[in-house]
Amino acid sequence: MPLTVIAQNQFHSGEPGGVAVLHCYRKILFMHPVLRLSDHARRSSDQAIGFLMQQAVENADCISLAAGLVDEQSLPVEIAREAASQLLTDGAAGRKILQYGTTAGPEPLRRVFRNYLAELEHREDGLKDLPLSQLVLTTGSQQLLSLVTQALFNPGDICLVAAPTYFVYIDVLQAAGAEIVPVAADADGMVPAALEAALKSIDAAGSLDRVRLVYVVSYFDNPSGVSVSAERRPELLEITQRYSRDTRILLLEDAAYRELRYEGEPLPSIWSFDETRETVILAQTFSKSFSPGVRVGFGVLPTQLVKAVTDLKGNDDFGSAHLNQHIVAKVITDGGYQRHVDHVRESYRQKRDAMVAAAEREFGDIPGVSWFRPSGGMYVWMKLPDHLETGFSSPLFQRATHVDKVMYVPGELSYPVDWTDRPRCEMRLSFGVQKVAGIEEGMRRLASAVRAVVPSAATLQAASR
Amino acid sequence: MPLTVIAQNQFHSGEPGGVAVLHCYRKILFMHPVLRLSDHARRSSDQAIGFLMQQAVENADCISLAAGLVDEQSLPVEIAREAASQLLTDGAAGRKILQYGTTAGPEPLRRVFRNYLAELEHREDGLKDLPLSQLVLTTGSQQLLSLVTQALFNPGDICLVAAPTYFVYIDVLQAAGAEIVPVAADADGMVPAALEAALKSIDAAGSLDRVRLVYVVSYFDNPSGVSVSAERRPELLEITQRYSRDTRILLLEDAAYRELRYEGEPLPSIWSFDETRETVILAQTFSKSFSPGVRVGFGVLPTQLVKAVTDLKGNDDFGSAHLNQHIVAKVITDGGYQRHVDHVRESYRQKRDAMVAAAEREFGDIPGVSWFRPSGGMYVWMKLPDHLETGFSSPLFQRATHVDKVMYVPGELSYPVDWTDRPRCEMRLSFGVQKVAGIEEGMRRLASAVRAVVPSAATLQAASR
Repeated sequence: MPLTVIAQNQFHSGEPGGVAVLHCYRKILFMHPVLRLSDHARRSSDQAIGFLMQQAVENADCISLAAGLVDEQSLPVEIAREAASQLLTDGAAGRKILQYGTTAGPEPLRRVFRNYLAELEHREDGLKDLPLSQLVLTTGSQQLLSLVTQALFNPGDICLVAAPTYFVYIDVLQAAGAEIVPVAADADGMVPAALEAALKSIDAAGSLDRVRLVYVVSYFDNPSGVSVSAERRPELLEITQRYSRDTRILLLEDAAYRELRYEGEPLPSIWSFDETRETVILAQTFSKSFSPGVRVGFGVLPTQLVKAVTDLKGNDDFGSAHLNQHIVAKVITDGGYQRHVDHVRESYRQKRDAMVAAAEREFGDIPGVSWFRPSGGMYVWMKLPDHLETGFSSPLFQRATHVDKVMYVPGELSYPVDWTDRPRCEMRLSFGVQKVAGIEEGMRRLASAVRAVVPSAATLQAASR
Repeated sequence: MPLTVIAQNQFHSGEPGGVAVLHCYRKILFMHPVLRLSDHARRSSDQAIGFLMQQAVENADCISLAAGLVDEQSLPVEIAREAASQLLTDGAAGRKILQYGTTAGPEPLRRVFRNYLAELEHREDGLKDLPLSQLVLTTGSQQLLSLVTQALFNPGDICLVAAPTYFVYIDVLQAAGAEIVPVAADADGMVPAALEAALKSIDAAGSLDRVRLVYVVSYFDNPSGVSVSAERRPELLEITQRYSRDTRILLLEDAAYRELRYEGEPLPSIWSFDETRETVILAQTFSKSFSPGVRVGFGVLPTQLVKAVTDLKGNDDFGSAHLNQHIVAKVITDGGYQRHVDHVRESYRQKRDAMVAAAEREFGDIPGVSWFRPSGGMYVWMKLPDHLETGFSSPLFQRATHVDKVMYVPGELSYPVDWTDRPRCEMRLSFGVQKVAGIEEGMRRLASAVRAVVPSAATLQAASR
């Protein structure tokens, strides 16, 4: 039995068959007993992102409207080089930067990030009343999401999320053994009445003390592209606080796409409405607005959560890369960061326009197809007719990747796996990676695949020729 | 009741009292209910490292022989600047570096690190039979230790560690709810007979299937300075494998200080004796040999552990900072890394010599004091007479920090907290941070503190004047 398991595992490792067989042979001789993994590790397997990346590798010849990478063409090579070079020119200062930092990030850098947040929030007082101890620098904002989840969840605890929501965070919650409760969202983001109804129902079932968190991607949501409207921001907070009775419920505001705004006025965060700062956790990152390769993000935490998160982070890494924190702080202080954000906004805006125009052009006459035009971020969320499934094993996905050579992210990944009502007919389309020509060609191919699997549309199409 | 907890927490946050009171007041008005943390987070509190860092802050006027930082004077500012600058000179290549990497680190970089490992192991075949899929790049080696522990341990599972051992790893194990079993070590490292006896005793108690891991710092141990001898390396492996009956026991080899060797021949790793590579996890880092501020380490994992570790890491951060992985790979390829290692070895050797000479000079005539002269690493481990406690609340620690103004790491931190037999009379002395003059003065002060609390020694001293 252990031998079988080992052999299977070998063949999953992606090695050439010959090497795998040889390894198996050696292993069989030594009779290694089975490796027992933790419950946490077992719950971490079968991740949506894993399947997706495997598909990306297997379909490398496709135009990818799937990848959530940032626009590589616009990455700030010169700004980063200049910052790194200047930071490491002075020997004494440079040596400090190459030394360990601190688990939460050095205080002077946290002050720079607090100033940055104050600008985002249009707070002229520089948020000086926010203690620097409530800021924690992380390896992208992903690490903050992970640490907060580890700090709060025992298996069986509950998290409410918008439906749909960021699928990697669904993976994180599943790894923690969380029960995930989807809450309806519309073009103005999570619906307050739906949040209240969900909490009421949980309360009626006697499980309110198991609710730890409400998770909201508040700006240009991944995957839906919607932002929580100005009116709803304080409402979601108020409902969360009102249901914090015996046990506090926190609201995790993921602001990853906040800076990528292509039109409209900037909205204050949900966090900004939290006067005592004891309910909202705000997750910010420079991965989208500057560079994912520097992996710098930060969080603002309720006071009582700071020690738990930094204790966990201390065990995990003693603090993220100190050099990179200095690079980001420097480009913010020097102004290079803001110039870069202005530049990428313009670039993404053009690509967003290209994708929306292509959607209109290519899908406009296919009955039952609709999409959301986002005011920022990197994604267009498209709905197909209800019967038309988009999952990895669906005829559409197979046709798209094998015939038309285009790849998208199946929408069903963005809902809890065990949610029986989850829609199966949606797609997340990214305009992050492709240039305008690639977006246009990708959308043309995707429409071709959709037409091929929508008999009625194909018929209509034929009739119209 | 919740209010009391909140108020207490406020005062732990290190803010000025006035601000804390104001915050409390606002909080009381809003009646925030208690925040419930996960079991994992609760087990992560009360860390040794936390107490130690607090002591370091409170005793900032002391000469620190406690800090485990690297020698700042020798950090490779010019080499790092040149590498970063070159990597970011070519626009297209630079943009790829500022993009996301992969969770395990890009394959070409893993190839560089495999070559590096082959050189360390004196393997002229470049370890080409080691699949690159078994290498994972991490945020320092600390992240690897943390991920491996998360992947393997459910609460109640068992880890065997040398006594004494790296105290931050004790924290990681405690956070995982592990049962920690100390195994005797001497000047040749963990004693094989003691490992066997411990496993035999666990087996007799019917708990062998709960043993997940044997943890060994194989080169210039933190804190003891000893290396596992050439003879013992295969022996520890063989015992671990022999007790892997129904459930596999892994051996985590922490090689953090491997490159900091000041004399003697380099030893092959324990990992190198593991022919099937299914028992030993090898943790390597560039934090000590190059720069902790770039936070790059890597691990070599048994095939069956790779997916569990990368799944967990995917949830945690999608991969460590891509830019930094390129910087380290480049300095290795260009040769700047090796020149730097030669340089720091010479610098640390001088400091090691200074500390050992100062020990001889200052402590040589104090009865019952002994120390280990390490052939590498950053620490001298000193034993005081049995009755003379060294803990944070001991008369010695108080005298040293408040009167003589010198700080050390109490040895008791390096044993499991609940081990009733743990020695209380040892100290870890680091020669990493201080210059030679600081080491000499620090040792003089420490001897003064010891003499002050050893009545018999003080008497002897007086008599000899």
